[in-house]
Parts: sequence; structure tokens; C-alpha cells
Amino acid sequence: MNKKKIINDPVYGFITIPSELIYDLISHPFFQRLRYIKQLGMTHLVYPGALHTRFHHALGAMHLMSLALEVLKNKGHEINPEEEQAALIAILLHDIGHGPFSHALEHSLVNGVHHESISMLMMEKLNLEFDGKLSLAIQIFKNQYPKKYLHQLISGQVDLDRMDYLNRDSFFTGVSEGVISFDRLIKMFNLVDDNLVIEEKGIYSTENFLIARRLMYWQVYLHKTVIAGEQLLVKILERAKTLSLNGVELFAAPALQHFLKNNISESDFLKEEKHLLNFAKLDDQDVYAAIKVWADESDRVLSKLCGMLIHRQLYKVEVSDVAPDAAKIASIQKRLQTKLNLSEEDLKYFAFTISITNRAYNAGASKINILKKDNTLIDVVKASDLSTLQTLDKTVEKHVFCYLDC
Amino acid sequence: MNKKKIINDPVYGFITIPSELIYDLISHPFFQRLRYIKQLGMTHLVYPGALHTRFHHALGAMHLMSLALEVLKNKGHEINPEEEQAALIAILLHDIGHGPFSHALEHSLVNGVHHESISMLMMEKLNLEFDGKLSLAIQIFKNQYPKKYLHQLISGQVDLDRMDYLNRDSFFTGVSEGVISFDRLIKMFNLVDDNLVIEEKGIYSTENFLIARRLMYWQVYLHKTVIAGEQLLVKILERAKTLSLNGVELFAAPALQHFLKNNISESDFLKEEKHLLNFAKLDDQDVYAAIKVWADESDRVLSKLCGMLIHRQLYKVEVSDVAPDAAKIASIQKRLQTKLNLSEEDLKYFAFTISITNRAYNAGASKINILKKDNTLIDVVKASDLSTLQTLDKTVEKHVFCYLDC
Amino acid sequence: MNKKKIINDPVYGFITIPSELIYDLISHPFFQRLRYIKQLGMTHLVYPGALHTRFHHALGAMHLMSLALEVLKNKGHEINPEEEQAALIAILLHDIGHGPFSHALEHSLVNGVHHESISMLMMEKLNLEFDGKLSLAIQIFKNQYPKKYLHQLISGQVDLDRMDYLNRDSFFTGVSEGVISFDRLIKMFNLVDDNLVIEEKGIYSTENFLIARRLMYWQVYLHKTVIAGEQLLVKILERAKTLSLNGVELFAAPALQHFLKNNISESDFLKEEKHLLNFAKLDDQDVYAAIKVWADESDRVLSKLCGMLIHRQLYKVEVSDVAPDAAKIASIQKRLQTKLNLSEEDLKYFAFTISITNRAYNAGASKINILKKDNTLIDVVKASDLSTLQTLDKTVEKHVFCYLDC
Amino acid sequence: MNKKKIINDPVYGFITIPSELIYDLISHPFFQRLRYIKQLGMTHLVYPGALHTRFHHALGAMHLMSLALEVLKNKGHEINPEEEQAALIAILLHDIGHGPFSHALEHSLVNGVHHESISMLMMEKLNLEFDGKLSLAIQIFKNQYPKKYLHQLISGQVDLDRMDYLNRDSFFTGVSEGVISFDRLIKMFNLVDDNLVIEEKGIYSTENFLIARRLMYWQVYLHKTVIAGEQLLVKILERAKTLSLNGVELFAAPALQHFLKNNISESDFLKEEKHLLNFAKLDDQDVYAAIKVWADESDRVLSKLCGMLIHRQLYKVEVSDVAPDAAKIASIQKRLQTKLNLSEEDLKYFAFTISITNRAYNAGASKINILKKDNTLIDVVKASDLSTLQTLDKTVEKHVFCYLDC
Repeated sequence: MNKKKIINDPVYGFITIPSELIYDLISHPFFQRLRYIKQLGMTHLVYPGALHTRFHHALGAMHLMSLALEVLKNKGHEINPEEEQAALIAILLHDIGHGPFSHALEHSLVNGVHHESISMLMMEKLNLEFDGKLSLAIQIFKNQYPKKYLHQLISGQVDLDRMDYLNRDSFFTGVSEGVISFDRLIKMFNLVDDNLVIEEKGIYSTENFLIARRLMYWQVYLHKTVIAGEQLLVKILERAKTLSLNGVELFAAPALQHFLKNNISESDFLKEEKHLLNFAKLDDQDVYAAIKVWADESDRVLSKLCGMLIHRQLYKVEVSDVAPDAAKIASIQKRLQTKLNLSEEDLKYFAFTISITNRAYNAGASKINILKKDNTLIDVVKASDLSTLQTLDKTVEKHVFCYLDC
Repeated sequence: MNKKKIINDPVYGFITIPSELIYDLISHPFFQRLRYIKQLGMTHLVYPGALHTRFHHALGAMHLMSLALEVLKNKGHEINPEEEQAALIAILLHDIGHGPFSHALEHSLVNGVHHESISMLMMEKLNLEFDGKLSLAIQIFKNQYPKKYLHQLISGQVDLDRMDYLNRDSFFTGVSEGVISFDRLIKMFNLVDDNLVIEEKGIYSTENFLIARRLMYWQVYLHKTVIAGEQLLVKILERAKTLSLNGVELFAAPALQHFLKNNISESDFLKEEKHLLNFAKLDDQDVYAAIKVWADESDRVLSKLCGMLIHRQLYKVEVSDVAPDAAKIASIQKRLQTKLNLSEEDLKYFAFTISITNRAYNAGASKINILKKDNTLIDVVKASDLSTLQTLDKTVEKHVFCYLDC
Repeated sequence: MNKKKIINDPVYGFITIPSELIYDLISHPFFQRLRYIKQLGMTHLVYPGALHTRFHHALGAMHLMSLALEVLKNKGHEINPEEEQAALIAILLHDIGHGPFSHALEHSLVNGVHHESISMLMMEKLNLEFDGKLSLAIQIFKNQYPKKYLHQLISGQVDLDRMDYLNRDSFFTGVSEGVISFDRLIKMFNLVDDNLVIEEKGIYSTENFLIARRLMYWQVYLHKTVIAGEQLLVKILERAKTLSLNGVELFAAPALQHFLKNNISESDFLKEEKHLLNFAKLDDQDVYAAIKVWADESDRVLSKLCGMLIHRQLYKVEVSDVAPDAAKIASIQKRLQTKLNLSEEDLKYFAFTISITNRAYNAGASKINILKKDNTLIDVVKASDLSTLQTLDKTVEKHVFCYLDC
Repeated sequence: MNKKKIINDPVYGFITIPSELIYDLISHPFFQRLRYIKQLGMTHLVYPGALHTRFHHALGAMHLMSLALEVLKNKGHEINPEEEQAALIAILLHDIGHGPFSHALEHSLVNGVHHESISMLMMEKLNLEFDGKLSLAIQIFKNQYPKKYLHQLISGQVDLDRMDYLNRDSFFTGVSEGVISFDRLIKMFNLVDDNLVIEEKGIYSTENFLIARRLMYWQVYLHKTVIAGEQLLVKILERAKTLSLNGVELFAAPALQHFLKNNISESDFLKEEKHLLNFAKLDDQDVYAAIKVWADESDRVLSKLCGMLIHRQLYKVEVSDVAPDAAKIASIQKRLQTKLNLSEEDLKYFAFTISITNRAYNAGASKINILKKDNTLIDVVKASDLSTLQTLDKTVEKHVFCYLDC
């Protein structure tokens, strides 16, 4: 069987699967599962095209990696075939531990277990199945390989992960504020002391990249209605888990049941493999299929919340720079309590506040170095003629008040 | 609440929701359900971007309808606001009766019930809920309205349904063979005796449209691997239904159970509303969520089939112009029987033949009339200087042999 | 003859010519001349696709005007057909007075005559030819019409002129840093007291628009090699004019001769129509056709400069934040003088400094008002959560040193 | 100086200049001249975006060549660096001999001299200047090199020249009927006995390519108004040459004068280099700059024709399958003769007939071979399931009657 395939991608044209090993990894159920985990969760409630998955994103990021390695090799940097394949595998698998609706899940079903940890567990398990062929990839993923730029291409301020998701999210939402010149940026990649740098001619593309990312945050990722949909999901799963832990039997696929009926911590994942195996069977569809059934549950809070999602009757969301007025919250809660005949305790499902933050650039972490023509390096923020970028380094925090408007 | 909204669509830029009534129809759970029914079923196994839904397609077709009506009005044809809204509603709802993986379903779960009939039932039900405001739309949908072109825009040889799905399928698969000049085509629309015609200057765009449609058939809709995925789904549902009817209890959401445990005909749908209400709760996710659980079922045929889908181990598909060689089939079946230890009867799940047909243009049905500059009409096939289009009128039948290659 | 036409535009799909009067204006030689005046002068030396013309830009801006007026009318603002046509004409003709390679020309051939003045003269002349049908358009163009927003749409901080040129320049150069969401921006247009405002939901698109404009300045409009090409043209025309004024007979079309042999001021244009009539015969082609012949002229400076352009041997350009070092300039001039055997006086053609500035937003002039949901207005700079935009208000000045590197 | 550059191309993103030699060839005035020769002559009168040049097309074709060679090498075919560079040069220079408005010119100014011959002469001259480094490229161009596929990639039924011009013409005109899947097609390239073949999976893309080409003929290349503009140019140059040969002194740049005042045959080009050197100075701009001056000439035929072009008052064009009616022609000529007060002899400038032909595929010449999975070869026409393609092999001839409608 021919495993060197090309795959149509509306974003890049064609993606080549570069080796048999990678073909086999893609065919593995762990990776196939990503076909059913949407990259942007409930964002499609606002942008109906945003149905692209972590499967597609992972392939796209791998494609950009192959372009980047080609550029670096053409500039005279030696990268051997093993390193090349390892870097491709590392980025292909970087998100493999994501669960359905990651953020909702991380705040409810698998409380406090980060997807990065699960990604690591899955890679280790795959490494066993594939006779250690993923060891170098894992080293790179963990940033334990001397050629640091291989890790920086996967996870850094201008990494290929971000580049692909900006491209892809912009393409599928139709939001052109996120358009970046990824091909120019990659062509400007270079290395200094095994660190990734960007040549001076790429400075405006870098600036555009950082600003596009920030605009996508406000226009898409933190769009009010997106938050409303995501929070509704969080509350539904919270309620379902509370009921399940209290012995109420809810409809759910066995793998979902596993996480509804048990409190499972990160250390549990390390101790018993069954948690990982159940997790590996979960995708967006199990959650939504259950929610449709729960809409007819006898628990009034759960059925109300699920009904809201099915009718796309989302929370009203108010975003502000300062904490919302306590009196206003109280008055809305009062109204809801009467109207829906809720207990004090159950109010939290229908009116609550959260906070969101967004920082587009983090000079402290690992700054973006621009390689000037005189071969000196300079932080992109200082290289820019405007203070535009300095402001991107500030954390913007917003207060969000969500409530059912009825 | 402001119900005049604009929606981002990566295909057309922005789609405007033209009225409150239409906003409320879109918010109805019947229509929201379409968010979870992929336009192209299992095609994403080949073209990973092809995750767009009937929800998005319906909105897109409505958008094209508003463009087309604008063009016709600008050419001096009177269309009043009621007709306009009705035409928009009719095309918005034209596919509302589609179930998950329509073709698979129509050949298994709801045997012999066409989605058009269910669409009609749902529209009638919505018409009751909306106090008769959909009556004119239903008349147009049924082709009972005197202005025949309104129906032809929804269902004809160059209708807006086809135009949107070619645009959209081409966009999300990344297959540029399907690119059509829909905007030019629509600008060339005109009316003669209340029938839709295309002005002479649109002849090459029409030709391109017909050929693009044919190419999309072979490149996408009837792609071998797409067939393989779809057939696997058909066989899984066939097997699950057979087991269910025999009393085996399988995991499934209640609405899916309803169709697994009962043989429901089109006349049943007419008699008892519960069938429709259950159907209205079904989407792609229920089916796939169940399949993942069934992979661990004790029935060996069912668990094998489901495991194949999860590992993307699809049937091998051989397409030919003549019926496949009986001896070859027998030999492959023999091998499978031994290898999988199958009963004679269960062989049909792992090796079988079907036939597929494709006709891009149907001169008999309702031909495409070109309006010449001298105001005469001529069938597009005759207007073209080549016999290209005449060949599109022929039915192409192909024989497909599917089997598990192990 | 049917004068209601549609024109293919790769940027917007189709542009409709909305009336016979506008069709006739477009057919007028004054307007047809714009077919041969490139929007971006010598930029195609760097971006070979950048051959689009002021003709195409004017049509595109008119198209955006028709979209904007449609949006405003749909929001309940009354705009009558006369105003509509006048606004379309005003933006169609806003650049009609541009000469070939405007900037080069304005600094040499028609010293100190601004293209705006010539646009006005041409519009007045067309108004005579078209029996006063352009009077309202001229009022709008001059900002003398009470509905101030009609002028603001043509000339303001987020006007349709800028919107079209960002779209168009980005499209034809292939520089994606200039991509803006013009359709979203236009859909967010609204009016308050006859002034153009942008609804709050358009704030991120506005920010993107301002930043895209700034990036295009540095990436395209003020690209080093673009400056090098433009300055070479300036110097060629300066030399040719100096020679012509001294009685040297150079090859040139009569209209070009007219401006080579005479010093013509803005007041001369007002006094004698022949200047305008000659100007109306000039386009890019006359200049370049002459330059090719001048490459064989006996004047060594002129032939050297023209030869440089034909061989694409452009000046070396050094851009810095501070004035270039005088000693360095002197040393390079010294070398050039010896090498090319130049007189002191002629050195200025081969080594010289200029300064360039760029300010993306001008809060002082006519700020961009954001219409908040509570119906208050706020300057976009203050509405943004970052100080990004405040920095755009600063003038950035750069020093440019151009010299022949030989 | 860094001569390894990347160039922005809106069609392909970026084009890399692969070597110093190629950089120097591109900088040569012979090649820079192509910047001012539009690929589609007067087509911009209909499609205003169609201003792209032979310069850009040549770079684009070279880019496709580099992609194609990469694909072939990846499939295990050995192509050494010298062959690679030679193939790139051969396609880069394949059109270098084109004059301004080639077809117009070939029928008037340089009667009977084909651009292919001039391309050969220019390549030979460049080969001298570059010390024989173009010898292998010339061998490939002349189809004298054993690896025949290298020539077939430049000139064949699915060559990269055609692929680039379909892409480019479609992009710049905005006519989506010409969109082809060039990247899929190239990925399906393979070699059998040093001949170019297309793998079976590329059959629908090949079909699309052939049909797109045919549609572009009728929609763009042979569009009525395009013909009208081109014929007007032919007639202008015919008249100007007739006058010049009769001793009338017309304004023109010296190189253009050279061809107006002399009848120069292909053998003259071979005999005396001055013809080539003059030709190498000609571009579109010389012709149009002269036409603007000729509009004021005393010869009534010439000034009338030139005035028509400047006012975009083009011939009326009637296209038919049969020869136009002689009586009708006579009647129109009669009317014109009276109206314009023309001599019998001069009528031919204002009313005349020509014929045009178009054949999209030429099975006789060098057919397109499809490589089936069983390793047999089959002509694409036979491989297709429809007779669509067979019809493309027929020559379609149309009769065109052009006349001034006044």
C-alpha cells in the first residue's frame, strides 16, 4: 500500500505525508480521534464555517514545519533526516491530548488535568507501540534536544502552531483580520546559536502576525457569543457531574460516564492507564449527543441548560474593564430566582462572572529576535519604529458577566 | 433584540438574515439540528476540510436566492416582498428533512423514506407553529405557485441549491475543479413567461457549471475512499438494526434507539408524529458516538465493522465499467470467510457490489434555456459550439466492488 | 446601446456601471487616460504584479461607494437618487487629475501643481461638456454639500478611496499585510448628525485597517527599491527639463515636450486651457518611451540615468532615523565624481538625500468616531483597549540617502 | 550583492530566483523589456485587471518548472543541476522574442516574422554575452536534447507555459472559468521513456485543464470586444506603415520608425543585427504613445482610427458560424463611405472580415498520455468516460465581421 500520500487542504493546497511512520501515526485511533474535536469548540455558533478540527490543524502545522526546515536547510543549516522526521512528528502530535471542548472540559470533567500532560502520556504510549521510534520527537517536544530551535518552531512566540491556527481559523471563520503572511515569515527564518531568529526584512510581517493574533482574540476567540456558548457547556457539564457523583444515572457513552462518575486527577492518570484509555475514546460528539438527551432529564437545572443550547438561547454576556456592579448582579439574580423558581445554590448556573485575559506578546518569556543586516540581534519590540508592539506585551484583563436574559 | 444580523461566511463574505421571521426559523431546533449534519457525510475521511454542514449550505443557498431576486427585480420583473420572503424561506428549508449521513440512513435506518418527504412534514409542522406564515413558501417549494421560476431557482438544472453546494464543497475540500462563476451566472438570469432563462452572454459560465458538477462527482462525491467510508457506515447500521430487531440491546441515544428497534415506513411518519419528533433529534453525532461504543460489542461482525471505521481501515474499492468478475469475488469472499471465520450470511458485510450513476445534465427533465440576443430561446446543449454538453446528458453507470482487504 | 454594464474585477468580482451618464464619463478620453497611469508608479520594479491603474482604482472606489450608500439607506438614512449618482461620480473622478508617476512629475515637470487642482479643473470642464450634470458631484467633492458624510466617504480617515487602494494594492502586489475587512467595515458604517461614524462592532476592523495601512507604507509604498525607482525617474525628468529649457532638443511626444520646454505654474493652468489639454494627453507611456530614446542621448548625465533604469540598475538606498553622516556622503560623492567623471554640479543626480514621513492616523484632522451601543461617540484611539493606535498618530520621519553604487 | 531573491507573486505567493545566472538574465534589458509588453494586449479594454506582462508570465512559468522538476526528482528520476538550470532558463526565455501586441504587429509592422524566430535570435545573442552558458537551455528549447520531457514541459499539450497563462490570465481578468488545479496536475506528472505522462489520478484535472483553456478562448482571448480592440490596432499600424513607406513623416520613437519605414523580413533579421537591436527597444508604450500623437495627424483615416481607440469607440463585431452576408456588408460599407467620405480603397479600414479558430486539444500533435495503475498508457481522450474531450479535438472556425457602427 502506498503510504506517501498527498492530502487536499483548502488552506495550503496540498499537504504531503512524508513517511510511512507518519502515515501510520496518522492512522492510529489516538490521532483519528482528533477528526472529531473541533479546533474552536462552540465558535461555530457565531462563525458557522468554524468546524475545522485539531486533526486538520495538526496536519497543517506539520506542513509548515516541512516548509520551515526546507528554508533553514537552504540557508546552510544542517538538519539530518532523523531530526527532520522527529520535528515533524513532534508538531503533528503536539495537541494530541486535547479533549472535547478543552476549556469546558478542563474546568469540569477532568478538573485540573492539562492537555499538555495528556499529550505527553499519549506520546509515550505511542512510542511503546512504535518501538521507540518517537523518542527523538519526544525529546524535542520536551525541549530536551540541543538544537533548541526545533522546539521553538513548535512552541514559541512565532511558532508554527500559532501560524497554522491563525491561518486556519481565519480561513474557516472568514475573518480577514487574522490573515498573516506566513510564507514570507517562514522565508525570513534563520538560526543564530541554535536559536530561531527572523531576518530584518521580516519585521513588518512579524508585527502583522502579533497584531493579527490580538485581533483574532477579540474578534473570534473571546467573542461574546463564543464565551456564552462555552460557558453554557461548562455549566452543563458541571451540573451533570454533580448529579452523577450524587448517584443520578444520566445517559452517556461509557467513556463519558467514566469521567462523570469519578473525580480523576492528573496523578490518577499517571497511576492507572484506564483513565487514559477512556479519555482516548472521548470526542465532541459524545458530549453533544448526551446533552440532547439530557434536555429531557427530570433535573430542572440540567434540562433547562441543555434546552438552552439546543435552541441556541445563550447567556447574555457583558464585558467590561472593571468588575461588574454587585447591585446589578443581585437584581438580575433576584429576577431569575423568581422567574425560574431556583434555589439560591442553583443560581450560579444562570448568572455568574468570570474574567478573561489576553496578552499577544510576552517579552519576558522567549522574545522574538530580529537579525539585523549587521548581524546583531534585537527584540522585535525594539526594532519596530512604533510603540505598537510594546502595548501588546501588556496583559489585558476583562470582566465578564453572563446571565440568562429572560 | 436585534434579529437583523450578518453572518460571516468564508465563501461569500457576509450573509444577511433578512427578516425576523427568518431569524426565528433559523433559531428553531429543527434548523439548528442541521449544524450537526455534515453536507458531505464521510467525505472528510478523504478531504479533511469537508466538515461544512447543511446548516451552512442552507444559509448560503438563501444568500444566493437574495442575489438572484435582486438581479431579476433590477431587470424589471416585479416580485413583491411576500414572494421574496417566501422564496428565501423555501430555499432555506429545502433540505431540512435530511438525516445524518442521508444516504447511509436511507438505506438502513429509515428504509425507503426520502428526505424530501420529511422536509415537507417538518415545513408543515413549522407552518403550524408560525401561524401559517410559511404557506406561500410551501406552495413555491411544491411548485404550486404560478411564478414557476421561484421553484426553478430552488430546484432545476442551474438552481441555487446546486450553485451553493458546488461553491461550498469546492471551497471546503480545496478541489478547484469545482470552481464556478456563480456571480456571473446569476447576473445572466432572466425570465421568459415566468420561466428562468440564462442570457446568451452566460453560455460559457453555464457550460463551466455543468462540467464542474460532473468533475466534482468523480473527484469528490463518488471518490473511491468516500464510497468506502459511506458503505462502511451503511453496513454498520444494517448490522446494528438487524441485531436490535432481534432483541439485542445496543448503546444508543433514545432517538437513535427508536429507529434501530422499529421498522418505520413513510406512511408511519404520516400517521404518528412521534417518528418525526424522534427523527428531529438525530444528527451525525448520535451515530458516530454509538459506533465508538459498538466497537466493543460482543457481536463480532458489528465490533469488527466499527473498529474498521475507528482505525480508518476502509474497504478496498474497485470501480469498473463492467460488472466485476464473479470468480474474483468468490475467491476474495472465500479468503475473507476463512480469515475472519465468518458465516456465509455475514460475508455480505465484508465483500459486496453496488452500482453508481452520474448524469450531469438532463435534457429531458427541465432543460436550461439560453435567451439569445434576438429573443429566441435555445437549449444550452444546442447553443454550445461543441458536443461537450450532449455527452453530459448520458447516464454513466459504474460498478463498484467493495471488500475488506486483509 | 446598452450602457448598463458589468465589469469583471478580480478584487470584487463584478462592478456594475450604474447609469448612462456614468458610462459616458468613463468613456471620455479624460477618464480613459487613467488606463495608462499606474496606481503605484514604479512599484512594479519590486512587485511585478503591481500594474493596476488609476482607472481600475476609480471604478473600485465607485463600487465601494455603491455598497456604502446601500448600507446607509438600509439603516434608514434617506439618500435620494441624485445624491447617490453625484456621490458615485465624485469618487469616480476624485483622482482624474493625476499625471503619470504623480510624485516624480510633481517634483519636476509640473513643479508645484497639485493633482487635486487639476482634478478640479477637469471636473469643471467635464461639467460644461455634460451640461451641468456634475454640479452636485463637484459640490460634494469640494465638501460644500450639507450632507457632510458624502464627502467623508470620499476623503476622510476611513474613506472608500483608501479602502479600495489598500484592497487593490494588496491584491496586485500579493502583500497580505494589507488585507483588510472592507466589507465588515462598510457594514458598520452609520451616520450621526450627517457625519460618518463606525458602529462599535467594527472597532477591530478599524484598528486592522489603520495598521494595515501603516504596514503597506513600509512594505510597499516606501520600500527601498520603490524609492530608488521613483527617485531615478525624478532625476531623469529634472535633467531632461533642464536640458530642454536650455534649448537642447530631446525626443518626446508633443504633450510631453510642452512640459519639458516650459515652466508652467498652477496659475498658468487657470489662465490658459492649452496646459490642461496637453496634460490630458500625458500618461506613463510617453515618459517611458522617451526615456528609452534618451538612453542614447549625447548628454552623459541623461543617458547614464536612462540606461540605469533600462538595466534596472537602481540607486542604493539607505534609510535611517537620523540624518546620514556627512563624511560618508562626501566620500561616496568623491568616488562617484572620479569614476563617472562628473562636474560638481551634476553630482546631485547620482548621490542625494531626501526625507520621507508616514502618519497612519491623524487624530487632529477628522477623527474616526466609534458609535457605542449607548449611542455615545468616542474617538477610535480612545475606544481601543491598547495604546496601539495612539502611536499611529505620531509622524515617523526617516532619512533616505540614495546613491549610485558602482 | 545577494542575487538569490524571492519575488512576491499574487498568483503563487513567492517565486524564488534560483541562481545568479538567472538573476543576471532577468536583469538584462532584453528581459526587462518584457515588463512593458502586456500578456494579453488590448484585453484590458474589456477586463481592466488584465495588465499583467510577459515578464511576470515568464517568471511564473519558471516557478512551475521548478515545482515540476522537484516532483519528478522525488519520483526517482535523475535530473542533474545543469539540466535543471537549463530547463528553468529555457522556459524563462521561451517568449522573449514577443513584440508589443504580438498579433497586431505580426500582421503589420514585422510582417511574417514569427516571435519564435526572434526568441531564438535573442537567446543566441544572450548565449554569446553569457559565454555559452545557455547552450543546454537552447538545445532543450529546440527539442534537441535526449530527455524529451524537458522540452515537453515547455511546449506540449499540458505544458507549464499554458498552465501559467491560464492561472495568470484567470487571476488578473477575474474570470473563474479558467481556474485550473495546476498543483494537482503537476503532482501527477511522471515519466515513461523520457516522455511526460500524467498519472491516472490526475485525469479529471487534465480534463478540467483542457476545458478551462477552451472556455478562456471564448470568454477572454476571442471575446468580441477584445477582437475589436486588437483589429483596431492592426488597422492603425497598417495605415501608419503605408503612409510611412510613402514618405509621410509620422511621430514615433526611432525603433518604431525603423519598422514603419522599412519592410523587414525574417531573412533580413538573420542578415543584419540592427533589426534585432531595434526590435529589442520596442514595447507596448512606443506604439500607444505614437497613436495618441497620430490622432492629430492630417491623414483622415489614421487620425480617425487613432481617435476611435482613445475614445474607446471600437468596431462593432459580429461573430457567426457561416460567412457573413455579402449584401449586408456592402450596405454597411456604402453607409460608411458616405458618412465618412471615404475612398473605395480606405473602406477596408472601417469594415472588414476575418476568421478565427480554436482547437483546445490536438490529438494528432503530441497527445496527453495517462499512465494507468497497470502501467499502460492511454490517450486522455480515450481514458475519459465521456466524449467531452473528443469534441475538443475539432477545430472550431468562426467568421468575424468588424465595422464602425456610426
